[in-house]
Amino acid sequence: MTSSRLNGTVRIVGAGLLGTSIGLALSKKGVDVVVDDLSPANQRLAIEYGAGRKPAPTDEPKLIVVCVPPDVTARTVAAELSAHPNAVVTDVASVKLEIAKALAVLGADLSRYVGSHPMAGRERGGALAGRADLFFTRPWVIAADVQANSSAVQLVESLSLDLGATPIRMDASAHDRAVAMVSHVPQVVSTLLAARLNEVAPEDVGLAGQGLRDTTRIAASDPALWVQILSANAEQIRPILEAFNKDLENLVSALADVDAGGSLSVIGDALKRGNSGVAQIPGKHGSRAQNYSRVVVMIDDKPGQMARLLTEIGEVGVNLEDLKLEHSPGAQIGLTELFVLPEVEGKLINALTERGWRIAG
Amino acid sequence: MTSSRLNGTVRIVGAGLLGTSIGLALSKKGVDVVVDDLSPANQRLAIEYGAGRKPAPTDEPKLIVVCVPPDVTARTVAAELSAHPNAVVTDVASVKLEIAKALAVLGADLSRYVGSHPMAGRERGGALAGRADLFFTRPWVIAADVQANSSAVQLVESLSLDLGATPIRMDASAHDRAVAMVSHVPQVVSTLLAARLNEVAPEDVGLAGQGLRDTTRIAASDPALWVQILSANAEQIRPILEAFNKDLENLVSALADVDAGGSLSVIGDALKRGNSGVAQIPGKHGSRAQNYSRVVVMIDDKPGQMARLLTEIGEVGVNLEDLKLEHSPGAQIGLTELFVLPEVEGKLINALTERGWRIAG
Repeated sequence: MTSSRLNGTVRIVGAGLLGTSIGLALSKKGVDVVVDDLSPANQRLAIEYGAGRKPAPTDEPKLIVVCVPPDVTARTVAAELSAHPNAVVTDVASVKLEIAKALAVLGADLSRYVGSHPMAGRERGGALAGRADLFFTRPWVIAADVQANSSAVQLVESLSLDLGATPIRMDASAHDRAVAMVSHVPQVVSTLLAARLNEVAPEDVGLAGQGLRDTTRIAASDPALWVQILSANAEQIRPILEAFNKDLENLVSALADVDAGGSLSVIGDALKRGNSGVAQIPGKHGSRAQNYSRVVVMIDDKPGQMARLLTEIGEVGVNLEDLKLEHSPGAQIGLTELFVLPEVEGKLINALTERGWRIAG
Repeated sequence: MTSSRLNGTVRIVGAGLLGTSIGLALSKKGVDVVVDDLSPANQRLAIEYGAGRKPAPTDEPKLIVVCVPPDVTARTVAAELSAHPNAVVTDVASVKLEIAKALAVLGADLSRYVGSHPMAGRERGGALAGRADLFFTRPWVIAADVQANSSAVQLVESLSLDLGATPIRMDASAHDRAVAMVSHVPQVVSTLLAARLNEVAPEDVGLAGQGLRDTTRIAASDPALWVQILSANAEQIRPILEAFNKDLENLVSALADVDAGGSLSVIGDALKRGNSGVAQIPGKHGSRAQNYSRVVVMIDDKPGQMARLLTEIGEVGVNLEDLKLEHSPGAQIGLTELFVLPEVEGKLINALTERGWRIAG
């Protein structure tokens, strides 16, 4: 148990993936967390999972985190502001300007509201997908209205820091512009790509590999949620899609006559711009790899080697945060990727090397 | 060591990811494999990794598998056909019609050539990324020319079966149409999406999450390779991109006026078509999950639990093919995903249950 910046009771409204993850992380730090949800089953699941306790009539939360779907976020925030006149309220919805406008229309006390948006998620939803480290080193956008008290902003910033996230202050419209590019346009493109598969013979789709799976994974997202998000942020999304469309038309023209002079360089340039674009993304190798130090141990392809490795890691006293087995049945060597907190990486490498393990890359 | 369909010597030309993986899998089955590569360093690496042995002047390969880049595939196949007049030659390049045409122009002996395309790959290349199970349950397209001997076709089919792949006979143009949809168009779309990131402020890209990472992962692919692939298959790719573009323009129009009647249903319908499209993809959850049975064990968040679990699995005598740790530092319970051969799943579940382990989902 490490010390938290937050003190007093934190109330979480909505026990889905984000609410449960926040509850798990704060509870682990010793913060008093109460978890509420319109669904008693969801609420109980999150509480049993370790996200916090049931609310009591005597609770006086200092901070309320609203983790409900976007279309009910503004009214839930307004209701919580009214019900708890001494609490600061934040939310985690993915478009910020519209919620701020709706709260103004509802006459909410904007001095105690600070919108936020943790840039973290998973393909699975629900309480059981919750992870205390979901926000670890992830950006946490804090989009405070000019009317917000600075103490309220600081409280939400403390929340993000207690969760291991990196708070980033942005105004609501700058946030909405950024997420149009990094989240909403990818959703549209993935959706339209996946839609093409409806026109294809099953035997053709049967040839699908990992590239198609990755590019279309988010096309499986909830349409009801995404109609809300895309329409709420249409002004920011549209110009990016128009620029995409122009690039696409250039490429289609080049493909129409690949033997024409310059066609191959149009195609090649597009591919290179794709390379340089993807290089802009920080930590491309996935959040897990980013959060933790990675130690790769080579193990002989013999029974019991993994168990011995893990037993010895336990003896060394190092906590594994995650583990991946890279094991080819045909190869003479297996690779085990161990993920540990950066501060124990050196200790682990030394101890394993002393015990005769071979450390790779 | 299990029995192989192939017998005699198999010669692999090109010790990259695919060549090495084929060599690992065949060697494991006891097949005599020789590995050749223009680069002695690549060749040695693949051989040390277990992919086969060095060629000898006395070798008389019955089957030659050409695993070199597409632009040198036709001429390498032709050279191997000439050098080994009794051998059947196949290749693994991703566009098939152009290679068949080039071989005809080169006057190659098409009775002994059978083009193939294993639908398997990894984001990492090179010999050390090789895996004997790379092709396990993956489609393996066999695109035989009408001139190919049926015994040659059967030999390449035996290769695919020895690798655990599923042979699928298609003619070269049907193959090229299918991969345009499942591989080449996703590459273009991912590339054009990633290219948009060049126009964005770094602080905006800093908000990137897993969705952007997944949709743009393949945009990091080698431009030199992909210029070859896209231009070789332009006729099949273009109509799909044109249909994509039409859908895009409809969506942009709806986003231009979200308050207009019908706009939300245009957006919602697109999202739903994305859902149904992604549902067409077989085994969406990744090839690993497809190949093996998955047993999820709940473990208490206490030190040593993982080591004890693995020790006991070893005692039971079940081989783990892969393992994933789903561990939230905040949760009271960790989930360990064990991947085993389908035939030992029941044995493993029974043995673990008897020993008091809790099996989830």
